[in-house]
Amino acid sequence: MLVAQPNAKPPTPRSCPALDALQTPCLLLDEVRLRANVERMRAHLTRLGVAFRPHLKTAKSLDVARIAMTAPEGPAMVSTLREAEYFARGGVRDMIYGVGIAPAKLARVSAIRAGGADLTVILDSLEQAEAVADHSSSSSDPLPVLIEVDADGHRSGVAPGDADTLLAIGRLLLAGGVSLRGVLLHAGDSYALSDPEALAAAAEAERRAAVTAAETLRAAGLPCPMVSVGSTPTARYARNLVGVTEVRAGVFMFGDLFQAGVGAVAMEDIALSVLATVIGHQRAKGWIITDAGWMALSRDRGTARQKVDQGYGVVCNLAGQPYPDLIVADTNQEHGIVALRRGSDAALPDLPVGARVRILPNHACATGAQHDCYYVLDGSGRVGAVWPRINGW
Amino acid sequence: MLVAQPNAKPPTPRSCPALDALQTPCLLLDEVRLRANVERMRAHLTRLGVAFRPHLKTAKSLDVARIAMTAPEGPAMVSTLREAEYFARGGVRDMIYGVGIAPAKLARVSAIRAGGADLTVILDSLEQAEAVADHSSSSSDPLPVLIEVDADGHRSGVAPGDADTLLAIGRLLLAGGVSLRGVLLHAGDSYALSDPEALAAAAEAERRAAVTAAETLRAAGLPCPMVSVGSTPTARYARNLVGVTEVRAGVFMFGDLFQAGVGAVAMEDIALSVLATVIGHQRAKGWIITDAGWMALSRDRGTARQKVDQGYGVVCNLAGQPYPDLIVADTNQEHGIVALRRGSDAALPDLPVGARVRILPNHACATGAQHDCYYVLDGSGRVGAVWPRINGW
Repeated sequence: MLVAQPNAKPPTPRSCPALDALQTPCLLLDEVRLRANVERMRAHLTRLGVAFRPHLKTAKSLDVARIAMTAPEGPAMVSTLREAEYFARGGVRDMIYGVGIAPAKLARVSAIRAGGADLTVILDSLEQAEAVADHSSSSSDPLPVLIEVDADGHRSGVAPGDADTLLAIGRLLLAGGVSLRGVLLHAGDSYALSDPEALAAAAEAERRAAVTAAETLRAAGLPCPMVSVGSTPTARYARNLVGVTEVRAGVFMFGDLFQAGVGAVAMEDIALSVLATVIGHQRAKGWIITDAGWMALSRDRGTARQKVDQGYGVVCNLAGQPYPDLIVADTNQEHGIVALRRGSDAALPDLPVGARVRILPNHACATGAQHDCYYVLDGSGRVGAVWPRINGW
Repeated sequence: MLVAQPNAKPPTPRSCPALDALQTPCLLLDEVRLRANVERMRAHLTRLGVAFRPHLKTAKSLDVARIAMTAPEGPAMVSTLREAEYFARGGVRDMIYGVGIAPAKLARVSAIRAGGADLTVILDSLEQAEAVADHSSSSSDPLPVLIEVDADGHRSGVAPGDADTLLAIGRLLLAGGVSLRGVLLHAGDSYALSDPEALAAAAEAERRAAVTAAETLRAAGLPCPMVSVGSTPTARYARNLVGVTEVRAGVFMFGDLFQAGVGAVAMEDIALSVLATVIGHQRAKGWIITDAGWMALSRDRGTARQKVDQGYGVVCNLAGQPYPDLIVADTNQEHGIVALRRGSDAALPDLPVGARVRILPNHACATGAQHDCYYVLDGSGRVGAVWPRINGW
């Protein structure tokens, strides 16, 4: 299902325009912050004695993957089969496709595996297990499988205490010649928290659920070499990961305002921003209009449910420093309405038509997906490279 | 700023898979409904005696543009310069770039015009007028310009009664050798309405503001051949367009749940849907999990502010008929949580793993932008074509 953008041209990483010569809106990535975020997570997980499997769903870029992964062949996590195909072409070998497998996707999974990538699928039902077992037999490709376990009731997965279902799935898979790799959990409810103790408790609950499910399998004689957990907040706040073999996290690499609201990243570590140009004013209303609307920023309003509502993003100068109380208060498709927070007594900065600003996004995964490349800022604040990224399925 | 998706392959319109063989999630477009929506708008505007300039920001597809436009060369409206470049390559000649022009974009505008397209820009300030006049002189490309006028206080534009600013901009442009084409308005506040009389009143207010501004220019001896208004709701509800020369509208072509909530389209006319596959269940909670999360549907939650909150979309069977009270209640990046509306006593349909559903989107512009092509359903409900679309700037 790969369809070209009809006006697509090859990326030209050698022609890197200056920051003030870029056409706007576009996506900026601060490489220094990116590397520091990765280094911090890696050191933290090394201290906890577990492997790190970066989730590539936020970046969808081979250049970023090579910084985030511990080795060029992985491990890595993907959210779409298009990502798996793209990263496999880039030499990544050890991947998990982190969305419950649909039977109609199995042929595509095997095609990716036939190209040399060790792609693992996840599932949480007997129906899926049967489909995977049938496919493994008929295709002579014994698929590696992780059973998805529900860490906190937020989405998919077998309940960790539901030994009957866990064992029935495990036995069905083994009988079908599938390679049962273990269990996988994602503590998605941690996104709703913001207290460090509550986040540490969520990480411990995720660990305990994982260990419970793994022990259930092992006690019945089923293999469970991998115990994979992760989310950016629980990865950041985990204090003890005994029994866990690997941690997954993705959005922490870039950071965003939502994760800053959770407390999983610091505002000054956010590596992603949207470059925008001022195109007008409604001075009586205190509005500055820019060319970065929701199409460039995404429709994500996740911070609306947090203590500090950041509108559609925090407005910064070209050096990346936030203007006091200045946010994108509203958006249309290609217009951003920049204004002071309600009740603020800060001064509206003087930003004439043509002035440029950087906007920190609510949600890096959503904002990134609106763009097809990153303009990468080096340590001097100049554009040192252009890194393509993919989208779609 | 054209950067290829690194895994992009050419579109293969000759290989059109059956609906149940498509990889999901993907975007379906009902060609019969699309053509009917266009025909209805065209007939309505013909009755009102005005030209129709379709806004291509929703579709971003040359195939759709050729159905929507009254002639292969236009007129048409675009929201990005990448659209202008793409449609110009496709033979569209008469285009307006509908976002207030930034000085740094003028060279790109002239490059598009040098290729043969008559691309008009819009502006609402003396600063922009000065930049355009300077550019017109120095580049020997006398740019055509429309002055943006504020219909209803929702975004950009000179107030229609602000004769001083209108005339100052007009005179500055003329003195600079710019081709002053007239005025342009967009009644964006109509999106917040839902009563037919209020929508008709919004259309009449948009018309009056346009005529006021046009008469101000003409009374001072300035040219104003074009009087351009439009939004899907006001286009639909306008009863009298005397003094207006053209109407713009875009989202009506596809329709969506938000516009259905406004009353600008009928639910059964919505031509766009996302095809999704069931990948799991949480039966105790009444959840059906699909592979269409916010990445496939967009983060748009516009119906949350309307009388009927449609969640992230209305769930339909493969024929496009909604299941009673079944909506996408929540989403993660690649997961949709399908459930009955709160308080519904309808029965949850039996949708096993692998079953397929179609999801009507909240906002066609936002949902479309998450995809790179349309799988086009012909009258028999089969995929008759694959139409590429563009994104980005």
